[in-house]
Parts: sequence; structure tokens; C-alpha cells
Amino acid sequence: MGATETAEPMVSSARKPYRLVSRDFHPDNSVVRVGNVAFGGDKVIVMSGPCAVESREQVMTSAEFMQRVGVPVMRGGAYKPRTSPYSFQGMGVEGLEMLAEARERFGVLIVTEAVDHESLARVAQWADIVQIGARNMQNFELLKAVGQINKPVLLKRGLAATIDEWLMAAEYVAAHGNLNIVLCERGIRTYETKTRNTLDISAVPVVKQLSHLPVVIDPSHAAGQWQWVEPLALAGIAAGADGLIIETHPNPAEALSDGPQSLNFRHFEELMEKIGRVARALGREV
Amino acid sequence: MGATETAEPMVSSARKPYRLVSRDFHPDNSVVRVGNVAFGGDKVIVMSGPCAVESREQVMTSAEFMQRVGVPVMRGGAYKPRTSPYSFQGMGVEGLEMLAEARERFGVLIVTEAVDHESLARVAQWADIVQIGARNMQNFELLKAVGQINKPVLLKRGLAATIDEWLMAAEYVAAHGNLNIVLCERGIRTYETKTRNTLDISAVPVVKQLSHLPVVIDPSHAAGQWQWVEPLALAGIAAGADGLIIETHPNPAEALSDGPQSLNFRHFEELMEKIGRVARALGREV
Amino acid sequence: MGATETAEPMVSSARKPYRLVSRDFHPDNSVVRVGNVAFGGDKVIVMSGPCAVESREQVMTSAEFMQRVGVPVMRGGAYKPRTSPYSFQGMGVEGLEMLAEARERFGVLIVTEAVDHESLARVAQWADIVQIGARNMQNFELLKAVGQINKPVLLKRGLAATIDEWLMAAEYVAAHGNLNIVLCERGIRTYETKTRNTLDISAVPVVKQLSHLPVVIDPSHAAGQWQWVEPLALAGIAAGADGLIIETHPNPAEALSDGPQSLNFRHFEELMEKIGRVARALGREV
Amino acid sequence: MGATETAEPMVSSARKPYRLVSRDFHPDNSVVRVGNVAFGGDKVIVMSGPCAVESREQVMTSAEFMQRVGVPVMRGGAYKPRTSPYSFQGMGVEGLEMLAEARERFGVLIVTEAVDHESLARVAQWADIVQIGARNMQNFELLKAVGQINKPVLLKRGLAATIDEWLMAAEYVAAHGNLNIVLCERGIRTYETKTRNTLDISAVPVVKQLSHLPVVIDPSHAAGQWQWVEPLALAGIAAGADGLIIETHPNPAEALSDGPQSLNFRHFEELMEKIGRVARALGREV
Repeated sequence: MGATETAEPMVSSARKPYRLVSRDFHPDNSVVRVGNVAFGGDKVIVMSGPCAVESREQVMTSAEFMQRVGVPVMRGGAYKPRTSPYSFQGMGVEGLEMLAEARERFGVLIVTEAVDHESLARVAQWADIVQIGARNMQNFELLKAVGQINKPVLLKRGLAATIDEWLMAAEYVAAHGNLNIVLCERGIRTYETKTRNTLDISAVPVVKQLSHLPVVIDPSHAAGQWQWVEPLALAGIAAGADGLIIETHPNPAEALSDGPQSLNFRHFEELMEKIGRVARALGREV
Repeated sequence: MGATETAEPMVSSARKPYRLVSRDFHPDNSVVRVGNVAFGGDKVIVMSGPCAVESREQVMTSAEFMQRVGVPVMRGGAYKPRTSPYSFQGMGVEGLEMLAEARERFGVLIVTEAVDHESLARVAQWADIVQIGARNMQNFELLKAVGQINKPVLLKRGLAATIDEWLMAAEYVAAHGNLNIVLCERGIRTYETKTRNTLDISAVPVVKQLSHLPVVIDPSHAAGQWQWVEPLALAGIAAGADGLIIETHPNPAEALSDGPQSLNFRHFEELMEKIGRVARALGREV
Repeated sequence: MGATETAEPMVSSARKPYRLVSRDFHPDNSVVRVGNVAFGGDKVIVMSGPCAVESREQVMTSAEFMQRVGVPVMRGGAYKPRTSPYSFQGMGVEGLEMLAEARERFGVLIVTEAVDHESLARVAQWADIVQIGARNMQNFELLKAVGQINKPVLLKRGLAATIDEWLMAAEYVAAHGNLNIVLCERGIRTYETKTRNTLDISAVPVVKQLSHLPVVIDPSHAAGQWQWVEPLALAGIAAGADGLIIETHPNPAEALSDGPQSLNFRHFEELMEKIGRVARALGREV
Repeated sequence: MGATETAEPMVSSARKPYRLVSRDFHPDNSVVRVGNVAFGGDKVIVMSGPCAVESREQVMTSAEFMQRVGVPVMRGGAYKPRTSPYSFQGMGVEGLEMLAEARERFGVLIVTEAVDHESLARVAQWADIVQIGARNMQNFELLKAVGQINKPVLLKRGLAATIDEWLMAAEYVAAHGNLNIVLCERGIRTYETKTRNTLDISAVPVVKQLSHLPVVIDPSHAAGQWQWVEPLALAGIAAGADGLIIETHPNPAEALSDGPQSLNFRHFEELMEKIGRVARALGREV
């Protein structure tokens, strides 16, 4: 779908710049299905795993744990956008292969990030859900390319993106052909420095009013400290989020990235139990 | 307790500038008691009522409703800090008298705002809890005076106050003699304009780690729109807040201030029911 | 002038909430005169002096220097709003007396801050210009009182105040009877932490478009580091500010407050010379 | 230069994460030369032209004007990163060809934006300076590719990037082989909505202290309104910027993008005259 064809209807709707992703266009909630998982339905979907794929053992240990505690989707980055050129940049294709092996052995779906056209082609081939990270939320050429693949997209909100800009980034994906979009609030940049970012919990009801797309919460990147991940995760569910993506690590102290904000397996299991209780209190399941 | 006496120990603790309100000073949670209500204990305390006292009928109707639905504390402003000098500035003493009458007739405790030394003297005489609003969080002369009264204080976070500055404002009150302080997160100023403010839900666990004081959430001023008050209130409870302060109005469409963010009585009752369910799911009562 | 009388005209002008301070009300620039100084005219007015009055010697040394280099207005705080209750809170009346003596001996005008009704009464008696600090910009009861004195007011922008809120704070002063207002941009709170605040240099032309009031720049509180005061001061003049207020100290290393952002006398003299050059390049004098 | 080789020295310098772009590494100012232009020397370099290339006539008219008023570098976007997928996305290769023709005919150097690997290859071939826009400042794959071309780079600061993140983005370019980097401050995102962004004028002296790279100011994107471009441009020069990039248009009212913030030719000429006066007042030339 090209810009020319769709440009016209926008003229009469300056105040609501998005069209395909807006609730006006599709009044019911969209349900994004992948494998036996459905984002946007009655169930709260939990995704978890390490920040980065670091080794075969780390990935298999994580995937086995996810299978055991009933987490249907595992995360793990093979291509890592890092602030410093001198930081670990990810294992690339080798990492993707490990994730694919974990899927085969433990039956977890895989969500992992693409950072350019080349990695997108590979991620779209190996993974179940393609993640577009916060720093690429307005990498419009990448968004156009994501619009042309037939895998669901997890679209993170940019570090300082307005809700309108975030929905407009989703509109780029949609306008180029892919409406299987799950939005992910991961904290925004504010003046407060205690937390890594400020989780904009209000984004959940605001986005649900404006758009039909499912919304999940990433409490790990918002908090920056594992001790605060649990309250933010529970707050996300209470606010109506359709799911969570939470960083865990078999041994957070040795993680190559995001160790301080990663839960160990014991804390994650305790959190899962509480997520279930809050979800059920509000009429949902996990 | 004067500044001179307490100044010395600070020298050795530059990183933690607060002392009396810090968890190091008092490792257990503080419980702030007023009447038969205890902030910081097992129960989640709900406070509600109109933004401003507008008329005797409005106040009595509100108080009767609060009594009926089991809300132990009623809010209502008699002194209103308004952005414009041309906006309704509150009913003053007349409003305080109405609130006092409502307490007598319906058994609700009263929380209301003081804006300077003069109104503080009156509020401290008539009300059960003295509120210091966001715009006065660094009105240090007022904080010193609040330290010298023997009523509990509801200390709202400033519009763009860091958590450290907020705790330091509490330290002003404490250092001048009053440790009965309840902190209130009401949304901070960010670049996002969909909501009136951005509820910093992370402030709940962060403050609870740094301080022993109870923390409540004001979802109404954060949201700015009544439709988003419910998800934010539930998120607050899920994140571990000790209570909520929620704007309601017998007829929001006719409110003199904050109408758009005020719940009507029917929506508030539905919310109360859900608050109870989330609280119980996490082992607390309302 | 009461709220009732002035409220009516506002109804038809919801988009421009200020009236008396708006350029619509008074199309020409206002000139605020005090002694032989005129803010808002052809001359750029430089104010300087220490953050806080610390001793008689410090004040007299500063005033003598100001006289020598031709700075017509000296600053110096006798009442200090400090984030911590354990920090130096100012010398109070004793400090005001020192400032008054300096005025007599060295012919400098005095600007100093008031923080509540009591200090306002004293400052209005002893000083030439009353400063309302950033933390009290929405202390509306103080603004109302400032509206009733007959001394010029230096109204600093709040830490996170919008330009509209700042002009509305000025409107409080004006609506209560005092139109001798000089606005002061001193940096706003943003996510950037290298500087103490972010100088909003754009505020100069924006305010000048919206309002007839003079605007000055405080580069010291914006920068937080003396090395950056010079470029910000020059930028302020280039952007069209009517003046500057700059912290200096006879010995910055020993200052009781704001030492790191205070210029020593030698650097200040160098800056004065450059201020003159930039001002003259744009057709103004110092 | 690969990540592995350079990673080691970083270990001992956690506080200063950048290396090649830091002033510690290169104490003198870097001078970035292109044609007969030198960024970072005594001369202030002015770049100007339309936001987007719209037509052959618009480009030639602009280039002729730049030649006439002595502007050595013309801007003009052929690839436009737009918030909406339905907005004009630029003329692509056809636009680049027009820019190249303008260079031939009118002797102006060309700066234009690249948005992905494909456009980078073309821009690097046709243009004199490659611009990386604010939204791509942390598109690390693009930065790595820019590090491998031998054209100077104009690296805009991200919408909400800290100064450290911005310098780290420059470090990506440098670490991959290209040290011909000119930094561009174009306003950051804050809570203030009067201006499109908040020009962080302090960034000029802060960056000059931390890094040896030249810094220029984009007053047009900061202001969002042409009336405020002049004061911000002059402030930039007064603060020590090495240059300016300013949007102009033969007919701003008909511009396909950024019309409201574009100067017409008459206003730009007036501004050039004032830029010269401020620059000379501070010992520089234009």
C-alpha cells in the first residue's frame, strides 16, 4: 500500500494522524496470533529471557526454565544496539541459531530484535516475533521493511516518543502491509534518575482508547533495577496490559548486559505467581 | 528539633541527604494513624471527594456517599492554588466549616489543603489531615510551619520534583517536629501531553526502599481524564501503594474545577469493588 | 483588583489566559524603572553579587567591586530557600541590614529574595527590587502579596514551569496591583544532567512576543558551573534579553552556597567587556 | 578499527566512555575541512537551504541566492524521515541530481541526509557532507556504515539524547574510521510546547569542553517558528558555535515541509548581516 493511495483520507482527519492502527478504523481489539499464543485476548502473555544471547548453555538453560514455568515466548537478543561501540554487540547469526534450537527442544516461541535490513531478513527467517527496539522506533526505512514481512512485530516505544509518534511508527508498519503489531511500553526519558526510565503506565489505557492494537509492558528496562521489576509488572497487569516482557538470567551477576535489571529464576517464579493472582482478580488468565 | 542540632550527622552522609525520613533511620514501615485509620499498615486507605468545596449540598451529598461506600477519609479543597488569578480560589473558612459539619454528620475524616501560614492555622484546627499541594512542595517556610503542628500531613510530590527533593521536603517537616507524613505521588511533568501528568508509578517501590513513610497515589491529577483513573488506581495498588486519593463529584459536568478528571459516584463504586479485588489478591484489605 | 471583577473578560479569550501582562493589552515594551536603572529600554542591565549574604566583609567587598566595574544592581540572598533543612538558610534581617549599608556606601541598588509574607514585608522595606525565586513561582499567596507592594519584582521562572504558567504567575502579581515586573529565565528541568538546568534561551523571544514585560537571563543557575556562565550570558544578550543576573563571589571556593557556579571578580570583568561588545554589535548599550 | 581492539582501554575509564572524540585524546580543536570550508576554525560557517528538495526550480533559485549572499554550503533533503508514512518522503536520487547540478552551477557545497545503507551510498557519492538526522542518531548500523565512508558527517543530536549519548554516537563513527564529524545541536524534547524543541544552547560550551569536534546550531528545528530563528542563531554564535544550519525557502508559504520555520530570503539576508556583527564582536569572521 503506497503513500499516494492512502494519503487522501488523512486530509480530513488532521487531529488523528494514524488511520490503520486507530480504533476508529477497527473498533474491536485486534488479536495478534503466533503459534498457540494470542496477544490482545483474555490471556495475559508473559515473555521472558535474557537481554542478550551469550552462550548455548545460557540459552538452553533459559528455554528449559521457560518451558517448566509455562512462559510461552522467550526473548534473547542476537543483534544488540548498544550506546557504546566498545560494548558487546551480540552474537548475530550464531545467536539466532541457538534461539532456533531452543525453540525446537523446549517448545518456546522466540522474540528477538532486528536492527537493519540485513538482520531483519535473518530474524524474520528464524524467529517467531520480530522486535523493533526503542532506538529504532523512528528508523522509518526499517519500519517500511518490517511492514513487508509476514511475522508479528513487537514495536517498542522510543525513549522519548510521544504516544502519537509511537502509533505513527506502527502506522508505517501497517501502511506497508503488516498489521500484526504488538506495542510495548518500556519507560520514557524524564528528569527522574532513580529509575533507568520512567514507566508511563498511563500509556496502557491511553493507547487502548486510541488504537485497537495489543499493548505489553517491559518493566525491566523501565526499572533498571530488578527489585522494582515486580511492582511495575503487577502495575502493568492491573492497568490492563495484554502482556509483559521481563528480563531474566540464569545468573544475573554474570550477564554481559542488563544484569542489574534481570531477575533470577527464583524471583521470576514468585513474580509469575503474583501475576496470576492479579490477572485473575481482574478476570483474566495467564 | 532545629536545623543546628541535626546538621552535623549529615556531613558523613552526602549521598543520602535525608535522615529522619530515611529507612536507615527507621527500618520498619511507619504507620501514620488518624482516627481509626492507619496509613502504612495492612489496609489500603481510600480517600475521595470533590476537588473543591463548592456548596453545602455538594459537600453533604459527597460525605453521605463516602460513608455509604465505606471511604474513611473525604477530600475537598477550601483553599485552591489555581494557575490563573481569575479562577475560583476556594470558599476559605466557610468551606472548612462545611467540611467540619460533614465530618460530624457522616463520620468521615477530612483532608484539605493549606496554602500559607494563615490557612494552615485554620486547616490544622478544622481538618484531620493537612494537605500540602504539589506547587508548595518546596515552599520551605510553609513546610517548617507544618512541622510544628500536630496533625498528619499529606505531602504531594512537586510537579517536577525528583524523589530526593520530595523526601527532602518531608525531611523539612520532620526536622521541625512532625513525623506523621504520608507521601502522595500525583504525576510528574514530562513531554507527553495526552495525560495531564505522567504517573510515576515506579515512585512507589523506590520511595518504599528509601523511606519508611507511607505512600499513596493520586490517579486523578495524573490522568486528567476520568476514563483513565481506574487503571491508574489499580496500578497504584498493584505497585504497593498504601492508599489512593481520588476525585469524585456528584455531578462532574458541573464541577467548578477538575470536572473532566472526576469520577461520578457510579463509576467510583465500580472502582472500589475492583480495588478490593486487587488488594486482596496481594494480601491486603481495603 | 479582585478576581470577580477581572474574571469576565477572560471568558472570550480562553487561548490567551493572561491579560494585563499580555502584549495585546500593552503593545509597547514596558520599561520598569528603579533608581536610575530602566529594564526594558535600550540598555542591557547587569545585576551581580553573591548567592547568599555571608558576612559584612563579603557584602562590602562585593558592593565596592560592583561600583567599580559599573554594575548598577547587586544581588545577595538574606532568605535562602534550600533543598535541605540542614543547609545554611540565610542571615535574615541581619543580612538585609548589610545590603542596605552596601547601598548607602557604594550606590548600588539591591535585589534580594522574599520567601513568605514576613520576609516580604522586610525585603520590601530594605531592598530596591524584590526577587521571587523559582521554587515560589506558584506560591500564589506570596504572589498576591507581592502584587500589593510598590517595589519592582524580579519573577524567576519555576523549575519546570511552562511559559504560560510563568506569565500567569506574573498575571497574579499584576492583577493584585503591581505591574513593575521583570521576568527572569534561569534554566528549566530536563533529562540532561551535564548542566544544573537547561537554559531555555528561546524563552526570551517567545516571552517578548507574548508579553510587554522585560526579560533577563540568569546564566549561573542554568549552567551550574562557572566555566559555562560566559557563553550563556553572551547568548542571552544575543537573543535579546534586557539584562543578566550573574553570581559572583570574592572567593568562590569558600562560598556557603553556589560556589561552583560563581565567577570570581577577574572572570566577571572579562565577561563584562564581552557583554558590552555583543550588546553594541546589536545596537544596545550596557 | 574493530570493537575488540579498542575495547580494552575503556575498562580504566568508565566515567568518560568516549575515547576518539574526547578532548583528552585530542586536546586541540579539530578542524573539519571540505572544499574551501573549515569547520572548527576562526570562521563561522553558515549552511542554509530548503528542508526538502521539491523541484529543480526551487533548488536552483536557492543555490543562486546562497552564492549571492556568500553562504558556502547549501542544505536540502532528498530522503526525508517523516513522522507520518503519508507525508512527502523526498525525491530520492532525482533530488540528489538536482543538488549536484546546483553545486556545479553555483559553486555551493551540498549537505544532505542519508537514512539507510542504500541512501548513504548515494549521498556519499553525490554530496559533500552527509547528514545523519536526529531520529537516526542511535541507528548504530547506519553510524557504523558512515564510519566507513570518506566524506564529512554532520551528526545531529537525537531528540532526547544526552550529551554523552550524542558523543558516543560520534564515537561509533570515529571507531569505524571516520573522524571528520561536525556535531549539530537542534533542540531537545522538553515539557515546553511553545517551541518545537528546546534549543540546548549550553550544549555548545559543554561539548567543546568534552570533545575536540566542531559544533554547529540548527535554530530552525529548535524554534519551529521563523520569527524565533534569528535570536536563536545569534545566541548560537555568541555561545561559541562553529556554524549554523538554517532553513530558508524561496516561498515558505508553499514549502512541502517545515514552511513555518523557514526564513524567506529577505529575512535571511538581514540575519546574515547580524550574524557577521556578533561574530566580529567576538573575534570571528563569517
